Amino acid sequence: MAAILDFSASINPLGPPNSAIHAIHAHISKLRAYPDPNYQELRRALSMAHYPLTPEWILPGNGAAELLTWAALDLSKLETTYLRTPAFGDYRRALQTFAANITESPLTLGESKFVPDWSDMIKTDPGTREDKGLQIGINILEPNISNVSKKGLLLNNPHNPTGMLIEPEVIVPYLQKFGLVVVDEAFMDFLPPPQTQSLIPLVTEFDNLVILRSLTKFYSLPGLRLGYAIAHPERLQKWQQWRDPWPVNCLAIAAAQAVLPDQKFQQLTWDWLADARPKLFQALAKLPGLKPYPSAANFLLVESQKSVEWLQITLLKQHRILIRDCLSFPELGDRYFRIAVRTQEDNQKLINALAEILH
Amino acid sequence: MAAILDFSASINPLGPPNSAIHAIHAHISKLRAYPDPNYQELRRALSMAHYPLTPEWILPGNGAAELLTWAALDLSKLETTYLRTPAFGDYRRALQTFAANITESPLTLGESKFVPDWSDMIKTDPGTREDKGLQIGINILEPNISNVSKKGLLLNNPHNPTGMLIEPEVIVPYLQKFGLVVVDEAFMDFLPPPQTQSLIPLVTEFDNLVILRSLTKFYSLPGLRLGYAIAHPERLQKWQQWRDPWPVNCLAIAAAQAVLPDQKFQQLTWDWLADARPKLFQALAKLPGLKPYPSAANFLLVESQKSVEWLQITLLKQHRILIRDCLSFPELGDRYFRIAVRTQEDNQKLINALAEILH
Repeated sequence: MAAILDFSASINPLGPPNSAIHAIHAHISKLRAYPDPNYQELRRALSMAHYPLTPEWILPGNGAAELLTWAALDLSKLETTYLRTPAFGDYRRALQTFAANITESPLTLGESKFVPDWSDMIKTDPGTREDKGLQIGINILEPNISNVSKKGLLLNNPHNPTGMLIEPEVIVPYLQKFGLVVVDEAFMDFLPPPQTQSLIPLVTEFDNLVILRSLTKFYSLPGLRLGYAIAHPERLQKWQQWRDPWPVNCLAIAAAQAVLPDQKFQQLTWDWLADARPKLFQALAKLPGLKPYPSAANFLLVESQKSVEWLQITLLKQHRILIRDCLSFPELGDRYFRIAVRTQEDNQKLINALAEILH
Repeated sequence: MAAILDFSASINPLGPPNSAIHAIHAHISKLRAYPDPNYQELRRALSMAHYPLTPEWILPGNGAAELLTWAALDLSKLETTYLRTPAFGDYRRALQTFAANITESPLTLGESKFVPDWSDMIKTDPGTREDKGLQIGINILEPNISNVSKKGLLLNNPHNPTGMLIEPEVIVPYLQKFGLVVVDEAFMDFLPPPQTQSLIPLVTEFDNLVILRSLTKFYSLPGLRLGYAIAHPERLQKWQQWRDPWPVNCLAIAAAQAVLPDQKFQQLTWDWLADARPKLFQALAKLPGLKPYPSAANFLLVESQKSVEWLQITLLKQHRILIRDCLSFPELGDRYFRIAVRTQEDNQKLINALAEILH
C-alpha cells in the first residue's frame, strides 16, 4: 500500500539537505560527551547567519517550543498577555503552565484575507487612549510606563494558520507600549531575504522584544529538535539559568552548523515555493466550494463549504492523503483546513483528489 | 598530543553500545517527522524494562534534567523543599527557577562514610514529633496531614558526589509524611539487579513519589539527551501539559529502544564495575594523603590532604588527566575530588600519575 501523503505538517518537502544528513552521521561519535552548556560554537554559527548580531543575543533551544515555555514564564509575570486568535495551540499550553492571564483578541475575518484590526489592544490602555501617538519611531511610553508595561503580546509572523504576513510597522507600536512582545517567526525563513518582515533588526533597539525561530521546518528535521530565541542577552542569560543545562543535543548542533551556510539548499527552497505556492493557490481557488487565503508561508489556509471532517476522512480513505483540520483552532471549526505546500507532483495529486471528491 | 583522559564526567567507559550506534544511523531518515508527543513506543519499551509497570507510569524527557525542572515546579508549590547537601548543583537551579523555598540539610561526615542522619527533617515537624512512629509500612500521616504534606524532599540515590547508597527503609518515612519526595536515581542502573535499592517498586503505593532516571550515563550517550520519570500517571499527565510537546528527539527514541533490551552490554558493565571499582578504591587508599569513600556508583569521592586545585592542575598539565573538583559542592571545597571509574588501563594511569605527584 502506498505511504500516506502528508499535507498536514508544514515541513519543507525538499529536505532534509544532504549537508545535514552527512553532519549527523559524522557526529554520532560525539554523543559520548555532554554538549557545551553555553553552546558557544552553535551560537557563533547562528550569529553569522544573523550578522551583525553577536552570539550573546541568540539562545538555542530544544525546538522553538522549549523556548516558548520560558517566554511564557516571562509573560506570566505581566498583568495579561494578548493572544491573537486563531492562535497556535501550543501558545495556550505555555501560558497556562505558569497560570498567565490571557486576553484573546480575534483577528477580523476579511473578504479575501484575515485583516489585522489591532486597535482594541492599544485602545484598552487608558493611559494612552488619547495620545494617538502610535507612529513608528516615536516613543510614547511616557508618561505612563508603569501602567503600559504590564501587558504582553504573543503572536506568530507569518501567522499560523492563516499565512498572513504582518509588517513590522504594525508591531512596533506594541513594542513601544507593551512590557513584552514575543514574535514566533517559525516560518519566516521561507521568505527569501528581500521579502522578509523579520523583527530581528529591531532586537537591539527593544529589550522587550523576543523572537523565536525554528530550524527544523525549513530544513525538514522536526524529529531532531532545534530552535532559537533572539532577545536581549540579559533575558537569555536568565532563561539559561531557569532551564536545564543541556537542552540541545549534539546532533542538532552538528546539523545546524552544516545547514546554516547551505545557501544552495536555501535558494532551492525559495525557488520551489515561489513557483509551487501560487500554482497550488490558483488550482484550489478553481475548485467548487473552496477558498484559499493568500499566504506568505509554506502552507495555505482553505475555507470549505463542505464539512472538513468529511473532506479529511474521504481524502484519507480514498486517496491516502492527510490534510490538517482546524479543530485545534476553535475559532475556525469545521469549515477550514490547512495544507502544506509540497512538490508540484504531490500538490497535483491533492488537487486531483479534491476535484474528484468535490466535483 | 594525546587526548585528555577524562575522569570528571561519570560516564560508562564501555559505551555507547553498538546496538545504540546502529539504531541511530538507521533512524536518521525518521528525522523528517515530528516525534509522537505521547512517546507511546518509547514508553512501552521503558515499561518492559520496568515490568510490571505500565507505560502511563513512565514519562520520557530531554535528559533527567528536563524532568527535574517539572519536579521542581511541583516542589515549588510546597512550603519548603529539603535538600540533602552536598547536593548536585542542578537541584538548586531547578528549585530557584520557580522560587521554591529550600531548606538545606547537611549529611553528617562520618568516620569512613557519610552517615545519613536525617532525624532533623522529621523532628522539625511539630505534628509528629512525639509519635515516634517512623516504622516502615505504618502510615503515620494521621492526624496531621495538612501540616506534614507541605514539605518536599529532593535527593539522589546513589548520592552524588559521595556514592552513598540509601536504603528504601530510610526514605519510606518521608514518603509517609512529606507532600512530595523526588529521588534522582541517575546512577542506580550501575547496580546489578540483585543489589538495586531503587524505589520504583514503591511508586504504585505512593502518589507523592517521583523517581528520575537517566539513560545516557549508563549507555554513554549524554550528548543525545534521554531520561525518564516514574510517578503516578496523573502527575505525569500534568507535566506533559506543562512542557513542550516534543522534548525527546527521534534518535534518542531509537537508541533507547535498542539499548533497553541489550542485556549483553548491561552484564558487561556490571562485571566491569564489580571488578574495577574495588581495585581503584584500594589503590587510591594506599596513596599518601588520599581517602576514598565507599561508593555504590560508577564514581568515587576522594578526600585529599593536599589542595585539590593544585592536584587538578598538576594532573592536567603533567599527565593530561582531568578530575572533577568539588567546588560546585560548597560544603566540600578544596579537599575533595570526584573521579569516574574507567577501564582498568585508564584507572592504572590515574593511579600512576597520582603516585608520582603525591610521593
